[in-house]
This record gives sequence, structure tokens and C-alpha cells, in this order.
Amino acid sequence: MPADPARVVADLLELRSLTSQPVDGIPQTVGGRPSDGPPLGSARLAWTEPWVRAREWFASTFEGVPVETTIDPAGNLWVTLPGARPERIVLGSHLDSVPNGGWLDGSLGVLAGAEVLRGLYRDGVELPVSISVVDWADEEGARFGRSLFGSAAVSGTLEIDAVRDLVDNQGRRLAEVVREHGVELETALTAGDVHSSIVASAELHIEQGPILEASGLRLAALHGILGVERRLVRLQGQACHAGATPIPLRRDPTIAAARMAVAIRDLGLEHDAFTTVGVWRVHPSVPTAVNGRTEFSVDMRHLSRDVLDALVAGLQTIVDTIAAEERVTSEIDTLWSIDPIAFEPDLVDFAADIVEARSGVRQVMPSGPMHDSAEMARTGIPTVMMFVPSIHGLSHTHIEDTAEADVELGVAAFDDLVRRMIPWAAGRLG
Amino acid sequence: MPADPARVVADLLELRSLTSQPVDGIPQTVGGRPSDGPPLGSARLAWTEPWVRAREWFASTFEGVPVETTIDPAGNLWVTLPGARPERIVLGSHLDSVPNGGWLDGSLGVLAGAEVLRGLYRDGVELPVSISVVDWADEEGARFGRSLFGSAAVSGTLEIDAVRDLVDNQGRRLAEVVREHGVELETALTAGDVHSSIVASAELHIEQGPILEASGLRLAALHGILGVERRLVRLQGQACHAGATPIPLRRDPTIAAARMAVAIRDLGLEHDAFTTVGVWRVHPSVPTAVNGRTEFSVDMRHLSRDVLDALVAGLQTIVDTIAAEERVTSEIDTLWSIDPIAFEPDLVDFAADIVEARSGVRQVMPSGPMHDSAEMARTGIPTVMMFVPSIHGLSHTHIEDTAEADVELGVAAFDDLVRRMIPWAAGRLG
Repeated sequence: MPADPARVVADLLELRSLTSQPVDGIPQTVGGRPSDGPPLGSARLAWTEPWVRAREWFASTFEGVPVETTIDPAGNLWVTLPGARPERIVLGSHLDSVPNGGWLDGSLGVLAGAEVLRGLYRDGVELPVSISVVDWADEEGARFGRSLFGSAAVSGTLEIDAVRDLVDNQGRRLAEVVREHGVELETALTAGDVHSSIVASAELHIEQGPILEASGLRLAALHGILGVERRLVRLQGQACHAGATPIPLRRDPTIAAARMAVAIRDLGLEHDAFTTVGVWRVHPSVPTAVNGRTEFSVDMRHLSRDVLDALVAGLQTIVDTIAAEERVTSEIDTLWSIDPIAFEPDLVDFAADIVEARSGVRQVMPSGPMHDSAEMARTGIPTVMMFVPSIHGLSHTHIEDTAEADVELGVAAFDDLVRRMIPWAAGRLG
Repeated sequence: MPADPARVVADLLELRSLTSQPVDGIPQTVGGRPSDGPPLGSARLAWTEPWVRAREWFASTFEGVPVETTIDPAGNLWVTLPGARPERIVLGSHLDSVPNGGWLDGSLGVLAGAEVLRGLYRDGVELPVSISVVDWADEEGARFGRSLFGSAAVSGTLEIDAVRDLVDNQGRRLAEVVREHGVELETALTAGDVHSSIVASAELHIEQGPILEASGLRLAALHGILGVERRLVRLQGQACHAGATPIPLRRDPTIAAARMAVAIRDLGLEHDAFTTVGVWRVHPSVPTAVNGRTEFSVDMRHLSRDVLDALVAGLQTIVDTIAAEERVTSEIDTLWSIDPIAFEPDLVDFAADIVEARSGVRQVMPSGPMHDSAEMARTGIPTVMMFVPSIHGLSHTHIEDTAEADVELGVAAFDDLVRRMIPWAAGRLG
């Protein structure tokens, strides 16, 4: 029989009870229903004891299945069901969580992948290629600030020198902490030796946004991941006494920033893009003074490189124009820039067919958040993803949730997808 | 001979050399000319050794003048030249400074008052009333956060229980620190015993704003101090992923705050008032999330109670309207509220006459910043002030400055004012 969606829900709940802790906060739902007991937040911060415990439990769910289980030099946990050839399809996501996170972010993809693998074994499917479920190490970056640690090591985009001296809130260095988990930074990139054997990659994830819920949809195929242009805008005016300097004589960087923030939202609306002002700092930030300095971050996302370029140019125009009108000086620093990532068209078609068959609507959309699948796709591995809805669009909080029926629908669709990918992958190997 | 303005400039420079310290920062001008040596910031924080040193030096400048010098139970330093009656005209300001402050804020008023007093003695003016120069204790509130400590004790508005446990940056309590300077909080309000003997009050101060400079004016009479309505606006929306929630589905409190800040400036312009957004805090303040909360302070000032009421109502409308449009919740907390303070019309007329005679323009304006004179006027003592310009409108910084000629013009005008107040005050005593 194919993958058992109810088994995945049961596994997710077992993992939740094993690796969560009570949190202060509003009551939560689990599977769309009020939960018993106090609110629980997942506590699977990477490179900690609960995370290790989650992995040990995860490995135990393959009892009786002839898998090979290994941890690679970057700390990724691989569970492989060998096929006729060593080349593999990778079903990967992450068991680590943010502090006080939800029960589905990452775990859904790993535990769904595991059940798909077990289902293939139970059914006795003759596998022309191998199937690997991978728990990527430290996807969240919640401890040291570097997301996608393990998948980036495999794709080769992890810069060792840039992460070595990152410190956590306790002041401990990344290099020292990962060593306690068997990862030596000097050899971590050898995890990439597996790269050439990966023939395709797939990931099931929760949306972490409100689009599906708002449209009454239960399932989506993803055709890529939005590119990101992230900036820090720094404005300098003149601090002065709030009661002594008439408004027309001021050079107020906070008012300039406020006007820019509104214009940046309009810019996003105009281009059907995501534009967000998140960080916002003012100085001296006292009630009795006009501020002398204000700075804010701008995060801009879109699937089109051309639109991203238009957003960057539009931001420059907004900042230049308003800074001149308000007589403040401005600088724009680049914090991050990543091109849009397109998934493999054949696999997107497969996923869209399945989404339509399972849910009645051919919903194809991009992901705004980053995922380990980005590291696969950007280095040329044929990749695809699927989403199930997030209630209220929330994630990275203990009240993250998805209706149980939608979780199960997602698992069934993901199973369909993998079964359709297997002959396709074999065909590409010739 | 009347007061010697050059003597006041010389005294100000001597005080500067005695009680300033080198600071990091841009070069400064003194008296409108580039200063010799490294930048100096005044270091006369209240209740510290340099402040005590400043007062000792100040008392020494009356050598040969038959003054009575006392420190009252609130720490105010009084220097009194007795007249025919014990009722007195008070010429008061403050020698204390903010850290790294300028050379004129407060000191100008005290040292100008001292020279006016000495000039009256030198001239052998027969005084129908006494003349007191007072150095009000801790006007700035820079150490414990409570401004106008000494003058509020005399006016009776100081709430002892509200200041007792204030702590400085070193964690020392106000009650403990002032005791080292002979002030017992339990008896501090007895400094107010002098109140009934004060027949009038005058203060010369720097503007600390750019209005005079921008208008090419050198001198102003003040007709009052602006009332203040200070609020904290707190907005709650919904934090979410910057790449997962389309702009139309967001409840972004930072965008709501930005729109409000722009509307609050327009509100100020519409009423010819001062409106300032100073404090600004967002949460979680990360580049990758729409914020869940934003709060900001609003400081609103005007000389008219009616206009202040209109500003308060206007703020409420702005917050209600935009919060509803942006689907965020809002609360407005009152941080501070003080009515406008009007100076004595007769004295304002005297000051305006003198300003016109000395500078050619009858400039009469309110003060936005608070001053010790507010404590005199609000408790019914006939009060008036004069301003000289601040270069670039700056104060509370080591680059605070005023052209030497303007300082001297201010001293001469202040001398005229006090000489005109003496018969007026005597006449009121009958």
C-alpha cells in the first residue's frame, strides 16, 4: 500500500511530545483542533540535546526496513533505501526548529519522506534508483544566524571562513559547537561528494504564509523560490530640541524614513512583489528630541530577476527623492542578494498534475521563504516542492498549525509525486 | 556703570576652562570663532565635583560686594544684594550642564544675573527691593531624569516620593546623592519658604533652537512657555514572514506607524505647532519579518490650550483612522501633560520695548524648551525671559554656541530689563 498519511500525523505528534516544552502564550491548535494541555513549543534547536534526541527517534522509525543510515561530514542525517543504481532521489527537509517553534516546519517534510520510503519498501516497488531521506543539519540558523548549513555544505555554497567564528547567545563559537556533534569545519565540504549522485530532489513543506488559506486551497505545486534583494537604508539628519525647532526648519530622518516606508510598500504593490521594512532604529530615540539618525531594512522578493532589478532601482529613486526633499543624507547598504531559483519544469508539471488531481485546483506558486531545496536547485539538481496551507499563515511560533486533513492530503500527494519521479529519474540516467 | 557684557563673556570662558573636559567630536566655535585646542564639553553634571567647583568659583566672583550667600534646603545657591525691603527680584538660571554640553546653556543666565547685580552695586543704585541671583539646583535632570529639581522645590511642585528612588547610571539613589550635598529630601520643600518673598523673576537664556538665526534676529522677549502634550502610541498587528505574506494580506504596524508619523507632521504644520515623533521601537526588528508591534512617542507643543486640545483630538483621529485602515489595534498612553505658561504682560512689554530698542526688531516669541522660569510663572510669580540666538539652533552638545556680540547684546538688554523691573516691583509692594 502507498504511504500512510495517518502514520505521518502520528509520527509528527510523537515527535512533538518527545521534543517540545511548555511555553507561555496563547492556546494552540494541533491539526486544526484545540490541543490538550498547556501550549507546547518545539525545542529542536540545532546542535542541542533535543535535536539529537529527535534524530535518534527518527532513525528508529525505519525498524525492519533495510536502509543505510549515516551522518555525513556536515552533520546531515541520511537514510537510504538502495535501488538498482546508487544514484538517488533525495527527499529532504529538516528536523531542527526555531525556539518555541511549531510542530510542522521541516518535520513534515522529513517524516513524510520517511513514510514514502517505507511505503515503497512495503509495496515491494522495484527501485531503478536509490531513495534517500535526509534531515539537513541546521536549516533554521536560529542559533548562529546561518541558515541552510547542511544543505549548503552539500551544494558547496557554504563559506567555512564566514561561519567559523559565529557565536550563539551564550557566546559559544560555531566551530566548537559543531565539533561536539562530529563536524569538523575543515572537512565539512566533503559532504558535497554525494552531490553528483543526486538525480532529483523533492520536499513537502508547510506554506508559512496565508495565500492558500486565503484562497481556500489545500495544496500547491511550487515552481521556484523568490529571489531576494535586502538593503539597509541609513539616513542622517540633524538632532534638535522637539520644542525649539519649528517643523519647516528640521532635517528629520525619521519622517524621511516614514515617507520612504510607505513608498516602499507602494513599490511592492505596483510590482506584485514582497517589500518589507523590518529593522527600524532611531537615535537618540527620546521623546523630547528630533532624531539625528534613522536606519531601516528593506527586504524585496520576486520570482523575476527583471522585477527584482526594477525594485532595486525603484528603492534608489524613493530614497534619493525623499532624502533630497527632507534635506537628509542617505546611504543604501546591501545586506543580501540572491537570484530567483526556478525548479525543474518537468517535475513542476508532475507536481501540478497531482495537485490538480488531488485537490481539484491546479495551484502553482513560488515560495517566498528559503528552503533546503534552494540549495539543491541552485546547483543544478532537478528539484520540486509542494506546500500545504498554514492556518492564519503563521509559522515560527507555537501556534503554527495545519488542518490534519490537509497534512494527510499533502503526504498522499507527495507520495504520488515521488512515485512519478522514479521512472523519470531513471530515464535521465539512461 | 551698568553691567559689563565683556565681563560676562570673560566669566563664561573662565568657567568653561575650569569645568570642561576634552571630548571626541567635531571642532567647535566659541563666541562664533574657531576655538583654540581640542573640543571641550562642559562637565557640570549636578551633584558632582565639577558642579560644586563651579559654584565655589561663582561665589568668589562677588568679592567686594556685600552679598549674602546661602544654599537652601533644596540645594539652590542664593546670592542676595539686600535692598530697602527683603522682598526680592530673582535673576535665576542654572550652572549645571548635561554631559559634554555647551558653555552657555544655563551659565549665561546665572553669570549675566551676577554681573547685573554687581553693576547695580557699583552704580550705587538705591534698591527699594532686594536682588537675588540664584543658581537653581539640577535644572537639567541629566543624572536622575527629573528636570527643574531646585526651582520645583521652591515652587512646591516637586513630588518628593516620586524622586526619592530615582537612580543614576551607576545605580546610586537620588536621596543618597543629594544628602552628600546637604539636601535632606524630608525638608527640601522648606526651600519654598522664600516663595512669598519673590516679587518678580527674570531669566536670560540661549534659544536652543534655530528661529532667531533663521530670521536674522539677535534678541527676543518671551511671552511664555509652550504647553506640552506627550503620548506613546502602541500598535499591534501580526508578525509574519517577509516572503510568505502578500502585502494586501498583512497587518503591518510599522507601515501604520509610518503613515501616522507623516500625518502627525502635517497636523503640526496645520496648527503652526511643534509635533515630534522621537522614540520609535519595533518588534521583532529583523529583516525577514513583518513586525508584530510598533510604538512611538509623540511630543506636541503650543502656547494655546485650545490648540493643544485640537492637537490631542487630531492625534486621536489620525491613529484611529489609520489603525482601522491598516487593521492594527492601537492604544495611546499619556506620558506627560503640562499647560502653557504665560509670562507677566507688563514684564513682557518691558522686555519687548528693550529688545526693539537694542536690536531694531520687536521680536516676541514663546519658548519651546522648559526653563526654571516656568516654575516661577506657574506658581503666580510675575516672570519674564529673554533669548539670544543659538548658532545652527544647537544645544546640549559641545558645539552649542552664540556669537560673542549677541551674548553681549543679551547681557546689556537683560541689564536694561532688570533696571526697569526694580521700580515696577517696588510699586507692586505699595
